Amino acid sequence: MTLEQLLATALPIIQAPMAGAQGSAMAIAVSNAGGLGSLPCAMLTPDAMVAEIQAIRAGTDKPFNLNFFCHAEPPPDPARESAWRALLAPYYLEFGLDPAASASGPARAPFSAAIADLVETFRPPVVSFHFGLPAPDLLARVKSWGARVLSSATTVEEALWLEAAGVDAVIAQGYEAGGHRGMFLDDDLATQAGTFALVRQVVQAVRIPVIAAGGIADHPGVAAARALGAAGVQAGSAYLLCPEATISAIHRAALSAPSARRSCVTNLFSGRPARGIVNRLIAEHGPINPAAPAFPLASAALAPLRAAAEAQGRGDFSPLWCGQHPPRFPGLDAAAVTRALAGQA
Amino acid sequence: MTLEQLLATALPIIQAPMAGAQGSAMAIAVSNAGGLGSLPCAMLTPDAMVAEIQAIRAGTDKPFNLNFFCHAEPPPDPARESAWRALLAPYYLEFGLDPAASASGPARAPFSAAIADLVETFRPPVVSFHFGLPAPDLLARVKSWGARVLSSATTVEEALWLEAAGVDAVIAQGYEAGGHRGMFLDDDLATQAGTFALVRQVVQAVRIPVIAAGGIADHPGVAAARALGAAGVQAGSAYLLCPEATISAIHRAALSAPSARRSCVTNLFSGRPARGIVNRLIAEHGPINPAAPAFPLASAALAPLRAAAEAQGRGDFSPLWCGQHPPRFPGLDAAAVTRALAGQA
Repeated sequence: MTLEQLLATALPIIQAPMAGAQGSAMAIAVSNAGGLGSLPCAMLTPDAMVAEIQAIRAGTDKPFNLNFFCHAEPPPDPARESAWRALLAPYYLEFGLDPAASASGPARAPFSAAIADLVETFRPPVVSFHFGLPAPDLLARVKSWGARVLSSATTVEEALWLEAAGVDAVIAQGYEAGGHRGMFLDDDLATQAGTFALVRQVVQAVRIPVIAAGGIADHPGVAAARALGAAGVQAGSAYLLCPEATISAIHRAALSAPSARRSCVTNLFSGRPARGIVNRLIAEHGPINPAAPAFPLASAALAPLRAAAEAQGRGDFSPLWCGQHPPRFPGLDAAAVTRALAGQA
Repeated sequence: MTLEQLLATALPIIQAPMAGAQGSAMAIAVSNAGGLGSLPCAMLTPDAMVAEIQAIRAGTDKPFNLNFFCHAEPPPDPARESAWRALLAPYYLEFGLDPAASASGPARAPFSAAIADLVETFRPPVVSFHFGLPAPDLLARVKSWGARVLSSATTVEEALWLEAAGVDAVIAQGYEAGGHRGMFLDDDLATQAGTFALVRQVVQAVRIPVIAAGGIADHPGVAAARALGAAGVQAGSAYLLCPEATISAIHRAALSAPSARRSCVTNLFSGRPARGIVNRLIAEHGPINPAAPAFPLASAALAPLRAAAEAQGRGDFSPLWCGQHPPRFPGLDAAAVTRALAGQA
């Protein structure tokens, strides 16, 4: 079965779910253009999630994807939190903020029975997970809706694990990919593989379709992924300059600068490794810092700094998510990017 | 001009020079099969270099490549050497070696006027460099022989620099590549790009042919590199299990094990970042350790440990160079690997 048959799309192109960077408008545009639009749900409140899914149902009759995180929520770790706040304290002082003030960052809730209750009525055609899969009973429930299930692998071992767990296709997320790495069996960043090596080896290891992700920014990239045996691609950064993206002007400017090519995988912004453009916080304390609290707790203490710096027009404390191939099509909307990726002139 | 026209080869396949892992026999086999065989010269004595080039001239009338390093030789740094020896001292004791004994590792000499004198009479058809390029007068001398000149870039900026310096083609060395990273303008490992992202962006940035390297292990990999716009590929690990490779039985066994997929970029074995299979030394002190002396000095103090462990059948202190796609064709010789890469059944 081809990926298009599996997903019931015209094109083998999945728009990567990018939490905090896009919502229903981008998903609708991509799905209507023949790709698979994705709604990142991890940072949405239940009400917002329902409203966004309703918007998608109203905006397209094509298949779409709902994306959820599957992390375990970490126990409180006051010592690490203190170390983190101590590390950030000089910045608080620099911006005239109170280092002792409590702070909360963007919430990131893992998929749960409560969320399943919410989305079940919408019968999402495709559901994708990041950081592994939910517990077997929850996964079975999603599959009982008839949803196609996808998840990301960053190693051959993770791909084999996902296949055994029953996913319909696996996203081989290479080192180039922007945003959070989906790693869930392995926490060794040093051995994470580039897209070229990972995709080919995952294709050889599993029987289900493989979706290539990481560094794919244009149609030649899609063709190369197909040559490696991928059934299709998932592209994220390629869409970040679209009008449908909800990122800040600061993030847009960073993506458009030559320095967008200087990205790295950092744990500073959330506690989990994620790829973003090198900025002041990374340069001074990263890319990987053991003081950063476990995912998703690191973001809370950063939130006031991020807001203060952004108010001055600076992204020094903002996660400037971007893959190793910055977006190539400024000015194109999400439908046009989808067509460009597919080679439709 | 195609890469085949530039190099006067039948195939757009370059066998990567792998110092310490192969010599003239592999180069001859690859060149005779229609690829570009390479002789790594960096670790050869002048006499051995001449003998190897004579062997190539006797073994093939096809083009071949001589490869040289262009590093600056570091000044002595007794403090760092002491730190390195202190770090290694427990291993010396474990193997019953004298930590105070002097040790010397494999020499790695940069390209020089003396070496140019040696090789000039052979009029090498192709000369490739790693870690940048030699000084302009030396480079001009090599070009005056009519040699085609190649060098490796690990960033778009390095590719543009090499193009401006007059190389005939640039090797885009992705993060997946085994052995030493060719980085020379940049020493930030965290921002090194995967093959997929790097090749495509270098292709867009330069006018000269781009040779893709890193994670390319079979014909679909070559096809994918071509789809990205590469004029050809340079493959190294793909040849490491050939009978022509001169690596140890320990290295061969490591390359054949599933754990060959767990490689990382480490500075422990030479002082410069290079990709090899994770072993004991990396697990316990790596992958990057600031105590390791500058390239190539780190290898000296490791040499006795490497020898002692290898005598026990263990590669705990050996550089087990390998890219992120371990060799796929055990049993094939270098000519057959060349044909397999080219898609000649």
